[in-house]
Amino acid sequence: MTKLKYIKSENLEDIARGAAFLGAGGGGYPLIGRLLAKQAIEEFGPPKVIQVDDLDDDANIFSSAMLGAPSIMLEKAAGGDDIAYAVEILEKRLGCRADAILPMEMGGINSMVPIVAAARLGLPIIDADGMGRAFPELDMVTFTIGGISATPMALTNEHLDSIIIETKTSKKAEQFARVVTTEMGAASCISCYPMKGRQVKEYAVKETLSLAMGIGQSIQQGREGMNPVDSLLAYLRSTPYYNQCKVLFDGKVTDLKREISHGWSVGHCFLEAIEGDQPHMEIMFQNEYLVARQDGKIRAIVPDLICTVDRETGEPIPAEQIRYGQRIKVIGTSAAPIMRSPEALKIFGPRLFGIDADFTPIEELD
Amino acid sequence: MTKLKYIKSENLEDIARGAAFLGAGGGGYPLIGRLLAKQAIEEFGPPKVIQVDDLDDDANIFSSAMLGAPSIMLEKAAGGDDIAYAVEILEKRLGCRADAILPMEMGGINSMVPIVAAARLGLPIIDADGMGRAFPELDMVTFTIGGISATPMALTNEHLDSIIIETKTSKKAEQFARVVTTEMGAASCISCYPMKGRQVKEYAVKETLSLAMGIGQSIQQGREGMNPVDSLLAYLRSTPYYNQCKVLFDGKVTDLKREISHGWSVGHCFLEAIEGDQPHMEIMFQNEYLVARQDGKIRAIVPDLICTVDRETGEPIPAEQIRYGQRIKVIGTSAAPIMRSPEALKIFGPRLFGIDADFTPIEELD
Repeated sequence: MTKLKYIKSENLEDIARGAAFLGAGGGGYPLIGRLLAKQAIEEFGPPKVIQVDDLDDDANIFSSAMLGAPSIMLEKAAGGDDIAYAVEILEKRLGCRADAILPMEMGGINSMVPIVAAARLGLPIIDADGMGRAFPELDMVTFTIGGISATPMALTNEHLDSIIIETKTSKKAEQFARVVTTEMGAASCISCYPMKGRQVKEYAVKETLSLAMGIGQSIQQGREGMNPVDSLLAYLRSTPYYNQCKVLFDGKVTDLKREISHGWSVGHCFLEAIEGDQPHMEIMFQNEYLVARQDGKIRAIVPDLICTVDRETGEPIPAEQIRYGQRIKVIGTSAAPIMRSPEALKIFGPRLFGIDADFTPIEELD
Repeated sequence: MTKLKYIKSENLEDIARGAAFLGAGGGGYPLIGRLLAKQAIEEFGPPKVIQVDDLDDDANIFSSAMLGAPSIMLEKAAGGDDIAYAVEILEKRLGCRADAILPMEMGGINSMVPIVAAARLGLPIIDADGMGRAFPELDMVTFTIGGISATPMALTNEHLDSIIIETKTSKKAEQFARVVTTEMGAASCISCYPMKGRQVKEYAVKETLSLAMGIGQSIQQGREGMNPVDSLLAYLRSTPYYNQCKVLFDGKVTDLKREISHGWSVGHCFLEAIEGDQPHMEIMFQNEYLVARQDGKIRAIVPDLICTVDRETGEPIPAEQIRYGQRIKVIGTSAAPIMRSPEALKIFGPRLFGIDADFTPIEELD
């Protein structure tokens, strides 16, 4: 696989498309983030990409992300100074400068936000994140496995108001961050999980920026050659994490139940097969797809990835953009090994989402 | 008037009773605060009381208060370490120690909270506050007249979680503080309006701790002598701020409309005269009493104080403890001159509470 050395403007489309896929239905469509990242790179230069193993053990690593409803993030269209400001507020609180920026999730808009922060602050960005996908809650990261606290956490808005949260548990920090974000108009910029280089080495999911780019490229290359979905699957099989992958279903959307609950987009999507006489598929989501069932039988389940793409172009389609009658392919892939560990399943396993089933790796499900 | 030199356990009952009167219907009944203050004084010794004019111009002054629903504050019964912790968090943020603690309001429970902070932190408490009464919103203080920002503001809870808020306007800080307080279970401890001694000298309402004690004493002395309400009125007439005072009504509660709206207790109280054939009185409140009307005519209006006391014992009765059939006297008094200035009326004049009337001093109303 190709590892990124700098993030240049011409990489953004591929990374954004790959991250839309890794968003596993959530994370928001990274268009606005891509524009902000493009603008930041043009103004401040392309940020250097640093591999986890090259980090100094004592380096100060700060994350960067946006929190809230993706559709609102789009509307508010932060200028980017609020994204960098969250990192600066956290630096001020901790009395040290960040040595590098770490993405929290590699799904959707939050693949782009740390690029904006890194470019604007003149810092390198780490080729890694805390899940190699997207998740709906702040504490659902591999860092939590290592007992790393989400706080102190800084939140900012486009008026450059700021909030610093310090709590005993990351779950509680998530709750405060959510009410503050709602008061900020349903979107905020955050920097949290301040940690040392050695902690990133132990707990981060590595190379995920490069992997997002590879995924985006494989879809694009498939359009120019054989077939976007085949090209995507071939690439996924070559990766260290997503190699257990398959098309779970090829169908059209026949029913969609979706509601906003506690700020999440929660619901079910039903699909009927386009060819043949196979049972229909039902996918449950809370921002991200959580479990795909066929005839009541689980085909893939969180934290493994369930992703939807256009059946012709391979374009990733987030759950919030799924429409009745749409023809899509549902792709399931394995998650990174650390994401499937017993400790990880206590943080973001199926039961944490109210699903009455244990995690089973996708390669063990027919 | 007698000026406090130390706050001793034996002063607390008088101060608390006086502050319940100055709460003007709001601020909560200071019982639990009094117990916390008693405990803190017994454990850490009586805090020294410092007069505003004796402050060093460059002294660092931090306020201390609780925010939220008084009934919840009672239920949660903070241990007191969270009260002091809010000040400590703000000290840490600003990189300086507090030289003295300043009460924000002299109404209800928030007369006691800064005593707890001062005792536990071994700091003097200033004989002053930001209004000489109680008000429902954080930005409704004389400090706002001087353009002093409410932020950085620290909030803490009984788990010692902490939040630091920094905003462009104190109004916005109030909004964030309110949602965070709700998430904390409807009560929080705060420290905000960090300022210098010279700013306290210019904008604080002076000697209000001593005045609260004097008011409490006068009611108690009246019970042992002539009449509690007459004794109270005689004392008020001797004070620098509350000297324009009168019994606005002597009646019984015939109707009460009260609802919780945005965390405030909002409503109307109707009174019928006990003797004679005079028109009934209607008092509107938002935590605190805002306007008292008789036959549609305004008898007293915010920021002047409208207070209710038991007609026999003179005991101050907060609006939330008013009951149908209760026999009370409604007392109106002037507010401190700075509270009646044009600049002040832009912050907490009648129109800021949605009342379609201008402020008229109580001495100009029949």
